[in-house]
Amino acid sequence: MDTKTTPSKRTGGRSAAVIHNVRTAVEELVEEKGQDRVTVPMIAERAGVNPTSIYRRWGDLPTLINDIATYQLDPARPLPENGDLQRDLTAWASELVEHYRNPVNAALLRGGASAAGERQSNCLRNRRTEAGLILQRYPDSPVTDDDILDVVVAPIIYRVIFVPWTLEDTTAEHLVERLFR
Amino acid sequence: MDTKTTPSKRTGGRSAAVIHNVRTAVEELVEEKGQDRVTVPMIAERAGVNPTSIYRRWGDLPTLINDIATYQLDPARPLPENGDLQRDLTAWASELVEHYRNPVNAALLRGGASAAGERQSNCLRNRRTEAGLILQRYPDSPVTDDDILDVVVAPIIYRVIFVPWTLEDTTAEHLVERLFR
Repeated sequence: MDTKTTPSKRTGGRSAAVIHNVRTAVEELVEEKGQDRVTVPMIAERAGVNPTSIYRRWGDLPTLINDIATYQLDPARPLPENGDLQRDLTAWASELVEHYRNPVNAALLRGGASAAGERQSNCLRNRRTEAGLILQRYPDSPVTDDDILDVVVAPIIYRVIFVPWTLEDTTAEHLVERLFR
Repeated sequence: MDTKTTPSKRTGGRSAAVIHNVRTAVEELVEEKGQDRVTVPMIAERAGVNPTSIYRRWGDLPTLINDIATYQLDPARPLPENGDLQRDLTAWASELVEHYRNPVNAALLRGGASAAGERQSNCLRNRRTEAGLILQRYPDSPVTDDDILDVVVAPIIYRVIFVPWTLEDTTAEHLVERLFR
């Protein structure tokens, strides 16, 4: 199952172009039509690929949406590095908030949510990995990656899904402050 | 919009029977077929009502699913009352965890999540109201309803949607402990 949802393993040439075109098609179509009205044939046409290529690579539409929602936040981007754990986490959480204040990204996350529950989503796994990478630099940290997921990531994702209008410039900062109280 | 999604205002006689039958039909069908394969005509047939009655009352399927997911946790049920805020909140959060450990309720929440984002979901509003009602009994409480939503409810809902297998008997207790640390 998981190999299907990590197309980043083959990023060269034609394969990378297909992923890029399909991703762009999904983003455009979700923005234009709303996620409920997007179908695989529609995505295939816009991306200029055969629907069977999409089914072969992703399996089904919910998996594709979940996958796209993940890769929007590039897992290979550099993580904040300010020499201070609280500042690093605030910068990192702010990126997350900014990303999901874009309505397309929020809609994709909601789509991912409806398809989630049977296996760890890539999105969640990437956030946990990133939290772990930041923590590694601070071996005396009083907080764990579980704390970061519960106190910072969960309230952000909860807001994105259910009350996106409550995401503010200071949300990330306030949540990270709570972690160090 | 909101009046459509609060059918509890008319709970007598035929109307109550329709709501009950539709709700039961949705639960059964989600369990049998998975939420993605459930349609309004299917629900209408199982509930013995006309599809137009469903569209008139709920508008569309995502709104119906969101509504059902809400009413699963009876908003009129008595709230825990142990004379101690931490114990009350632990009991209340444990109810929430127990409720969502039922895979049908979790699937309905995921469906509600995919339909959310444009208005406050009833589910969320009910939880916030309940947190407020419990807090009213403890005027000297050091915590606010926002704290309860962020520190207790958000991590539970996040787990339900993305990592349901991490919900444990002690999850509610641990989250509420963090609130009082």
